[in-house]
Amino acid sequence: MDVARMKPEEARAMIRRNEWTRPTSGVAGGYTQANLVILKKDLAFEFLLFCQRNPKPCPVLDVTEPGSPVPNLVAPEADVRTDLPKYRIYRHGELVEEVTDIVKFWEDDLVAFLLGCSFTFESAMLKNGIPVRHLEEGCNVPMYKTHIPCVKAGRFEGPMVVSMRPIPETHVVRAVQVTSRFPAVHGAPVQIGNPEAIGISNMDRPDFGDPVTIKEGEVPVFWACGVTPQAVAMQVKPELMITHAPGHMLITDLRDEQFGVL
Amino acid sequence: MDVARMKPEEARAMIRRNEWTRPTSGVAGGYTQANLVILKKDLAFEFLLFCQRNPKPCPVLDVTEPGSPVPNLVAPEADVRTDLPKYRIYRHGELVEEVTDIVKFWEDDLVAFLLGCSFTFESAMLKNGIPVRHLEEGCNVPMYKTHIPCVKAGRFEGPMVVSMRPIPETHVVRAVQVTSRFPAVHGAPVQIGNPEAIGISNMDRPDFGDPVTIKEGEVPVFWACGVTPQAVAMQVKPELMITHAPGHMLITDLRDEQFGVL
Repeated sequence: MDVARMKPEEARAMIRRNEWTRPTSGVAGGYTQANLVILKKDLAFEFLLFCQRNPKPCPVLDVTEPGSPVPNLVAPEADVRTDLPKYRIYRHGELVEEVTDIVKFWEDDLVAFLLGCSFTFESAMLKNGIPVRHLEEGCNVPMYKTHIPCVKAGRFEGPMVVSMRPIPETHVVRAVQVTSRFPAVHGAPVQIGNPEAIGISNMDRPDFGDPVTIKEGEVPVFWACGVTPQAVAMQVKPELMITHAPGHMLITDLRDEQFGVL
Repeated sequence: MDVARMKPEEARAMIRRNEWTRPTSGVAGGYTQANLVILKKDLAFEFLLFCQRNPKPCPVLDVTEPGSPVPNLVAPEADVRTDLPKYRIYRHGELVEEVTDIVKFWEDDLVAFLLGCSFTFESAMLKNGIPVRHLEEGCNVPMYKTHIPCVKAGRFEGPMVVSMRPIPETHVVRAVQVTSRFPAVHGAPVQIGNPEAIGISNMDRPDFGDPVTIKEGEVPVFWACGVTPQAVAMQVKPELMITHAPGHMLITDLRDEQFGVL
């Protein structure tokens, strides 16, 4: 079974049957994957506003109608309640359960937000011969809290979380160009080469994910990270919040290249 | 008084004192101007969702907190109630009044949407030596209803309105490149050269604005137009809707070039 060559609808059907409960990296290659955040409607306007004001960490790909589990723009045949391999249920800001579908948690006033993820620009980097260290080392990307404040929206506020990829000096300009093409999936970096300038004191101790090797002649480059909206939403301690489990994304019908602005 | 060289805050102060009640084209050159749509909070989520789903006609630059007249992201010193030269008041979808400030219409549950306008990309076209016909002819840009449906969001739905600029054949590719740099202000064209393909039967009779000359060797090129969200909002017949009067924009503190993605 070559999951990399599956069509998105085949991959989602496999996931819906609980035949794939692992991370989705590499599944249905070339198709865009999305982060999921589900909140009740009474928080939805403020959260959408937060995303609109902070497009680098929170690139909105789709928002469902209240009560509808169908992401009409990115995958009109999909169902966000069943088509991701793993979900996390948070009550009042506490993780209470990890499940493979959320049918029994669904309510009439839930709104699902699908946010762009870094898989898209990492794929573009690889196609341009730019190494992606955490993929080489088979671990999660290192993520750090910064002291860059997000723009507040209603109850939602907090610092930006960034992901870091060490880039060979000779490739830094190309890495900026390549990722700038994809503003819908975090876009250009937010910092090049100076972690302290954004409040990161220890590169060996990421706040999320795993540390990776920075080789001689490589520069740490930082991108706004999709963990930001989850971290910010958590602080509000919503009665109910549902997210994908890290790495267990929704596979959309849209191709990565369709998000390139030029 | 050289209004083109004014700083945004100077221009807004002049407008606030009602010393400038004309269109803002050419005022505070190089700074981004924005369309205004004000709705009550109960429609705000659906309208923001509509904009998010239709970014080409509805490029959101800023959304105020409910009840606040301050556009914090684009002009934190501005007040949307006084800083535009002319406003239109709509009640239940009908234009009832045109005024130079909206202080007495302001309510605690109003939300102001600031949307990107074509002035930004027209300025970029001119800098690239691409002619802009309606500026040459001193009239309004011709706008047409199409049969391209917008993506529905709650009560908001309807066809896309486009603006048309005749471009010399030799400049069409460059016009696509130049405007693609500015996705936050309508971005790349939606159609090149075939009005009937998008449901436009008579180029001499625009639905809004004025007809312009299409010269020998020129191609009509169509861009998504900021009239779309107003037209769509009007169909919902909201109890109260306030917009800028056509051409009478908010001058923001951001420079046009800051919206270039590359």
